[in-house]
Amino acid sequence: MSKPKVFEKPSGVKDYLPGAVERLRCIEERVLTCMKRWGYRRILTPTIEYYDTVGVMSATSDKKLFKLLDNRGKTLVLRSEMTAPIARVVASVLKDERLPIRLAYHANVFRAFEDESGRDAEFFQTGVELVGDASADADAEVIALAVASLKAAGLSEFKLALGHQGLLNGLLGELLDGMPAEQDQLRERLLARDYVGYRRLIRGFDVSPAVKEKLLGVLELQGGREVCEKVAGFTSQPSTQAAIGHLCEIWDALQSYGVSGYMTIDLTMIGNFSYYTGMIFEAYAAGLGFPVTSGGRYDNLLHSFGRPAPATGFALKTTRILEILGPVEEDSAKRVLILYVPERRAEALAEAAELRSTGEFTVVTRRIEAEEAPGAAAVMRQDGGPCDGMTADEVIVWTAEGRKGGAQG
Amino acid sequence: MSKPKVFEKPSGVKDYLPGAVERLRCIEERVLTCMKRWGYRRILTPTIEYYDTVGVMSATSDKKLFKLLDNRGKTLVLRSEMTAPIARVVASVLKDERLPIRLAYHANVFRAFEDESGRDAEFFQTGVELVGDASADADAEVIALAVASLKAAGLSEFKLALGHQGLLNGLLGELLDGMPAEQDQLRERLLARDYVGYRRLIRGFDVSPAVKEKLLGVLELQGGREVCEKVAGFTSQPSTQAAIGHLCEIWDALQSYGVSGYMTIDLTMIGNFSYYTGMIFEAYAAGLGFPVTSGGRYDNLLHSFGRPAPATGFALKTTRILEILGPVEEDSAKRVLILYVPERRAEALAEAAELRSTGEFTVVTRRIEAEEAPGAAAVMRQDGGPCDGMTADEVIVWTAEGRKGGAQG
Repeated sequence: MSKPKVFEKPSGVKDYLPGAVERLRCIEERVLTCMKRWGYRRILTPTIEYYDTVGVMSATSDKKLFKLLDNRGKTLVLRSEMTAPIARVVASVLKDERLPIRLAYHANVFRAFEDESGRDAEFFQTGVELVGDASADADAEVIALAVASLKAAGLSEFKLALGHQGLLNGLLGELLDGMPAEQDQLRERLLARDYVGYRRLIRGFDVSPAVKEKLLGVLELQGGREVCEKVAGFTSQPSTQAAIGHLCEIWDALQSYGVSGYMTIDLTMIGNFSYYTGMIFEAYAAGLGFPVTSGGRYDNLLHSFGRPAPATGFALKTTRILEILGPVEEDSAKRVLILYVPERRAEALAEAAELRSTGEFTVVTRRIEAEEAPGAAAVMRQDGGPCDGMTADEVIVWTAEGRKGGAQG
Repeated sequence: MSKPKVFEKPSGVKDYLPGAVERLRCIEERVLTCMKRWGYRRILTPTIEYYDTVGVMSATSDKKLFKLLDNRGKTLVLRSEMTAPIARVVASVLKDERLPIRLAYHANVFRAFEDESGRDAEFFQTGVELVGDASADADAEVIALAVASLKAAGLSEFKLALGHQGLLNGLLGELLDGMPAEQDQLRERLLARDYVGYRRLIRGFDVSPAVKEKLLGVLELQGGREVCEKVAGFTSQPSTQAAIGHLCEIWDALQSYGVSGYMTIDLTMIGNFSYYTGMIFEAYAAGLGFPVTSGGRYDNLLHSFGRPAPATGFALKTTRILEILGPVEEDSAKRVLILYVPERRAEALAEAAELRSTGEFTVVTRRIEAEEAPGAAAVMRQDGGPCDGMTADEVIVWTAEGRKGGAQG
């Protein structure tokens, strides 16, 4: 096998240059401030976790986990999402803190995607978890916070789809009682958004015309609050009726939050993570085919970590948002380049210190460098892009005769 | 082998709770702002790199590298430091940008330390690289920036030791010409700061008394600028004399920066990284036995990445600084808890939105939750610590009769 070239990096990972880093930090700062104002405190967890605990419970498919061995031979993983690590923290370090607990994070996560997918192997997520509150109001809170976070990140045009994993599973279980394989087939078609395939499957099922009609009717369960009334006619199961009631309550709370205008109910939606048990939601930005946020209720995950508790949360796909947002507003501080001859170094450095103390960005370097290999000026002038902040607004030269300032760079 | 318990995480890695995260972000923000004002632009590189490129060139010993395989069987590493990745970026993505280039970073790095060492396997560093300037002024700039960064991080009492890898190697090479094994033995003793062992070794060497005297005299090469004059008498090699001249120039520039009061020259110092070629330095905080910053000149590393250029830089050991710093000043925003009965939800949520828009931290939750399982109040009241920001200053209750506000939580 050939060695990688010295300049190569692994497939699916990125270098972020100064302009992109400024934008990423800007999003991070604004979104975390928003989350903090809603009472969510930020935590950090390790990049590496045990495969047998967080790895298995994170519900990322095994082949997408980056695995490595520790010095005792135990298998470790690079975290693939933050929900399972936070569940571990809530059940261990924070075990004496009473519920509910509101936590926020901004973190890089890892997925060993196939090369040809073109997807990132390392990317950033910014999200929250609300642990210990089973109410519809808690679900509405995280959805409303997702809307506030998307706005804080700088997005203006987006839509959210609201589904319910438990409700859909309940419906399929009731209509296809004793036919788990058929239920799985339908779920696969819905996950792939292959409605044609979904209809074709149903035609082949050995069930009554009334059941077929209801299964086909599932595809129509998209819209506003009227969907809740419509689906009520599909079931007689108390647990499914309860899920419908919960969904109605979420919708009403979202109206109180003033965000229902962003929402569509879509009961054909399937959550990405197997640990979802209740409502699930995704946000889509204008003109993009993939979600910029996804979340949902997961009432069983904390049990796996030894502290049973209901929970709900979401993650912004921060890296995707970074790609679709324009440059952030440029820092208004002045950029100054100071050149000096050796005997004027003390004066030049003193002036640089003074400028920096007032918040200005100042590069100071010997003039002989700038003349013989004019890189010093270049670093201030060449690398355009609105965010690197390094085009000189002013050049000051300290010569043997004294200071010559103020020329435009 | 037994499975890890669900609450366990790998050895050497940490969860950072809200108070610690606030402090870490505060250090990060202040130090990066300082670096930016000196003209250093922040970049981000991937957590995973190829073993054969960055892994090998990072000069971290092989057994301390975390290794994993990509899906083509190539060996990857978790980055162990940031100097080699940045050299890769300067030689690839930034290859058309003229030198010098000033870059800054704040990043987590990984070392597979032995368990018993008690050292962190994942920790944060904040640093800079100045690529493309071979001058003593460039070395002085990064040292002076290290001093400014330590102050920005909140440290007041610290000292810096300044050495010179090239000068020491030149001296040993000249005094023990043709005796590389003996040179290595002495370097090992100096790295371990075992001066007794160093003296014992010299007594056993088959060299003249004059050489022995000079080798013993190396231990005395600690102090201020007078050390430069003292060491000049140890050598007749032009390259070593040049190194001494460079060191004198650095010292003079540091006086111009007004930071020589923090400095001691210590020519017995050995750099942690094998790629150091010139001056090296370390910063020590009052009362701590390990450095909080280390840096140095590495004029050959960029060559390995295909873009030969001199370079100098340093890294703050941010996690260590976090450990010795006290809590940051608490955010002055008020913390408000709003409880409501269902029929008053809209009013309660509107009040919460209003408070958040003015910058206050507001948790809003149904009162029935707070009464039946008083967690909602708990999240605001229980988890003390000056930085989690979640002790309620004010509790507002929306009952069926209306708003009852302002009670102290």
